Amino acid sequence: MENFLYKQPVPIDFGAGKVKQLPEILKKMNLNRGILISAPSMVRLGIAEEIKEQSEGRIVAIFSDIRPNPTVKNTDNCAQMIREHNCEFAIALGGGSIMDCAKVACFVAGTEHKTADYLSKKLPVTGTSIPLIAIPTTSGTASEITTVSVLTDEDRDVKAPLGSDIFYPVYALVDPELTLSCPPHVTAASGLDVLAHSLEAFYGKKHQPLTDLPAERAASLVFKHLLTAYHEPDNIEARAKMSEASVTAGMAFNLTQTAAAHACSYPLTQEFHIPHGEACAFTLPSFWKINSKGPEAERLEAFSQRLGFENAEELANQIDAMKKEMGLRMTLHDVGVGTEDDLDRLVEGSFSPNMYNNPVDMTKESLKEMYKAL
Amino acid sequence: MENFLYKQPVPIDFGAGKVKQLPEILKKMNLNRGILISAPSMVRLGIAEEIKEQSEGRIVAIFSDIRPNPTVKNTDNCAQMIREHNCEFAIALGGGSIMDCAKVACFVAGTEHKTADYLSKKLPVTGTSIPLIAIPTTSGTASEITTVSVLTDEDRDVKAPLGSDIFYPVYALVDPELTLSCPPHVTAASGLDVLAHSLEAFYGKKHQPLTDLPAERAASLVFKHLLTAYHEPDNIEARAKMSEASVTAGMAFNLTQTAAAHACSYPLTQEFHIPHGEACAFTLPSFWKINSKGPEAERLEAFSQRLGFENAEELANQIDAMKKEMGLRMTLHDVGVGTEDDLDRLVEGSFSPNMYNNPVDMTKESLKEMYKAL
Ligand SMILES: NC(=O)c1ccc[n+]([C@@H]2O[C@H](COP(=O)([O-])OP(=O)(O)OC[C@H]3O[C@@H](n4cnc5c(N)ncnc54)[C@H](O)[C@@H]3O)[C@@H](O)[C@H]2O)c1
Ligand SMILES: NC(=O)c1ccc[n+]([C@@H]2O[C@H](COP(=O)([O-])OP(=O)(O)OC[C@H]3O[C@@H](n4cnc5c(N)ncnc54)[C@H](O)[C@@H]3O)[C@@H](O)[C@H]2O)c1
Ligand SMILES: [Zn+2]
Ligand SMILES: [Zn+2]
Repeated sequence: MENFLYKQPVPIDFGAGKVKQLPEILKKMNLNRGILISAPSMVRLGIAEEIKEQSEGRIVAIFSDIRPNPTVKNTDNCAQMIREHNCEFAIALGGGSIMDCAKVACFVAGTEHKTADYLSKKLPVTGTSIPLIAIPTTSGTASEITTVSVLTDEDRDVKAPLGSDIFYPVYALVDPELTLSCPPHVTAASGLDVLAHSLEAFYGKKHQPLTDLPAERAASLVFKHLLTAYHEPDNIEARAKMSEASVTAGMAFNLTQTAAAHACSYPLTQEFHIPHGEACAFTLPSFWKINSKGPEAERLEAFSQRLGFENAEELANQIDAMKKEMGLRMTLHDVGVGTEDDLDRLVEGSFSPNMYNNPVDMTKESLKEMYKAL
Repeated sequence: MENFLYKQPVPIDFGAGKVKQLPEILKKMNLNRGILISAPSMVRLGIAEEIKEQSEGRIVAIFSDIRPNPTVKNTDNCAQMIREHNCEFAIALGGGSIMDCAKVACFVAGTEHKTADYLSKKLPVTGTSIPLIAIPTTSGTASEITTVSVLTDEDRDVKAPLGSDIFYPVYALVDPELTLSCPPHVTAASGLDVLAHSLEAFYGKKHQPLTDLPAERAASLVFKHLLTAYHEPDNIEARAKMSEASVTAGMAFNLTQTAAAHACSYPLTQEFHIPHGEACAFTLPSFWKINSKGPEAERLEAFSQRLGFENAEELANQIDAMKKEMGLRMTLHDVGVGTEDDLDRLVEGSFSPNMYNNPVDMTKESLKEMYKAL
C-alpha cells in the first residue's frame, strides 16, 4: 500500500493579464520595500521599469545581471543588492534562470555566506528567507512553485540543483501574456522541459497518486498545444494552455523530483551548451521507451493510451516528431558529441542523483548504448 | 479563457499506521503543550488516552464532549478548555464533527467572543488561531484540509458552514487504519459524502482545471472501492483507497465549494435527522442527471464515460444502486417527508448559498418537482 507526503504551499494565481494586479497583491500582503529581480531583456523592453513605476514606491531596486543558467556569482551579487537596499521582499520576473537566481538570493541575503558553499553542501540551508513573489515569463521550469534552484559554479565547473522548503516562493503569479514574446526556440525548449517534468514525474520512483494526476494532465496539454504555441507565438489560447501545463507539471515534479532525462541534461547543458529543455528532450523519448519495458511498463502503457497514443512507443515517437518539427537537435552529431571521448565524458557526467530516481536502473554501459543509438 | 486561484496549504501525510508517528511530528514541529480533541467513542475505546500517553507530556488535556453535527456550544466549551490549559496547539482525532469543532475552537479560544456570533456573521473571522493537526477517522468530509466548519446553532435552529483560511489545519495526518472501526452505516454515509464532494466540485460553477483532476480521481476511487469497504470493513486496501478518495476530493471542493446536493442536505440533516453523507446522496443522482442536461452537459457526459459508464445517466443510476445495496434511504417516504407541508419546508430550507453554485439554476418549482420524483 502506498504512503505519501503531499504538499504544495504556494498559491497559484493564474490568468491572462494578471500581472497588472501585482500592486494590489503587494498591498494586500503588506509588502512595502522590495527588489525586482528580472532579465536583461525585461529591462531592455522597459517592462521592468514599468512594473517598478506601477508599484507605488514598493519596488525600490531592480537587479538584472543574471545569465541564462545562472551562476553562484549572480546570486551573490543579487543578495548583496537586497542587503544594500534593505529589501523586505522580492519579485522574480523571468524564466527559470531569473526565478532560480532570486530564490537563492532571497535566502543568501540573510546570511554572511557565499552561495558556492551551499551549492557544494559545505553549509546546510537553514533559517529563513525574505518572501518572494515569482512571475514566470516562460512556460517551462515551474520554478515559481518548486523548492529547487539550479545553479552553476564556474570555479568548480558544475551545474547542480540546490533544494530547500525555504526556497518556496510565497506566491506564484502566472500570466500567460508574459510568454507571448518568447521566441520560437525558447517556446520549443521550455515547452519540452514541461513534457520532461510531466513524464519524469510520472515514471520516477517517487511518484505518488496525487502527483500522477497533474503529471498526466500537464503532458496531455503539451501534446495538444505546444506546436500551436510554437508556430503561432501570438496565439494566447495556446500560450495559456502551455502556462497551465508548466505550473501543473510543477505540482508533480516538485514532489517526485525528476529522473534520468534531467540527469543527462546537466552535462549536455554544461559542456555542450544545449538549453535546458532541449537537453532534457534529447534523451526523453529514449527513456520513455526504456522505462516502458521496465517495472512500470503497465502504467506507462496505460498512460500513453489515455493520452490517445496506441502505445508507449508511439508517445515517444511523437516527442521526436515534435522535436523535428521545431528544429531541435536529434543526434549526437547535432549536439556536438563527436568523439568516443566526448561520449564517455557525457556518460560520466550523467549520473547525478536524479538518475537513481529512474524506474529502470541505468549503468554506464546501458546509458552509453542508449546514447549511441542517437 | 480561464482564470483561477489555486491553493492547498495543508501538507497531507498519508499512510496506514501513520498515527504512530504523531509524537515525532509534534517534536519536529516543536509543539509542546496541546489538547486532544476527540470523540466520546475514541475515549471509550481507550485510543484517546493511549495517544495522550505516547505524546511524552505534550498533550495535557482531552476534550470529547462533542455531538455529531457539532453545536456552537460544543466549540465554545472546547475553546474554554483550550484557554484553561493554556494550550499552544491542538489535535483533532475524529470524523468531520470532531474536526469541525476543533477548527473553530482553536480560533475562538483566542477571542473573547462566542461562536454563535461568528456563525451568524455578526462578527468577522479575523486574526489567528492555534495550530491544529487534523487526523480523520472517517473517509468522508476531508475537513482535515479544508477552510470550512459546519456548525449547528440550536437556539436559531440553523446548520450552516463557517469558512476562513484561518481554519486550515497546519497538518493532515491521514491514516486509513483509523477508519477500520467505522460501522457500515458510517462507511456508507461518509463514503457517499466523498462522492458528493467530487461530483459537486466537478459540476460546480467554481470548478477550475486544477480541481477537476482530484475531483475525477476521487469519484473513480469511490465507485471502485466503497462497496468493498462497506461489505468488508476489515479490508485495509479498500479502506486506504477510500481515505485517499476522501482527502483527494477535499483538494477539489475546498476551492470550488459544494453545490445543490449539499444545499439540500442541510434541512434533511437538521429537520429530518439524516446523516450528512446520506443526506447529500439523497439528491446527488437527481442533480447529476439535471446537470448533465444543462450548460455543463458535455463535460459531465465525458466525465461519466472516462469513469467507465455509458453515459451520465448510467453514472447516476450506479449511485442509486450503491445506495440501495448499502440500505440507505431512497424515497421521500424513507426520509420522513410525509406531507405536502414537510415537502414545502424541505424546499424552502434547501436554498443555502451553495445552491447558487449549481450549473443549472434551480427554482422552488423545479426543486419541488425534483423532490417529488423521489
Ligand atoms: N527550479 C526548477 O525547478 C527548475 C526546473 C527546470 C529547469 N530549471 C532551470 O531553469 C533554467 C531554464 O529556464 P527557462 O527554460 O525558463 O529559460 P531561461 O530563464 O534561461 O530563459 C531562456 C531565454 O529566454 C529569454 N526569455 C525568457 N522569457 C522571455 C520572454 N517572455 N520573452 C522573450 N524572451 C524571454 C531569456 O532572456 C533567455 O535568454 C535552467 O537553468 C534550468 O536548469 C529550474
Ligand atoms: N468541514 C467540511 O469541509 C465538511 C464537509 C462535509 C461535511 N462536514 C460535516 O462533518 C460532519 C459529518 O462528519 P462525518 O461524516 O465524518 O461523521 P461524524 O464525525 O459525525 O461521525 C459519525 C459517527 O461515526 C462515529 N465514528 C467516526 N469515526 C469512527 C471510527 N473510526 N470508528 C467508529 N466510529 C466512528 C462518530 O463517533 C459518530 O457517531 C457533519 O456535521 C457535516 O456537516 C464538514
Ligand atoms: Zn527541467
Ligand atoms: Zn459533505
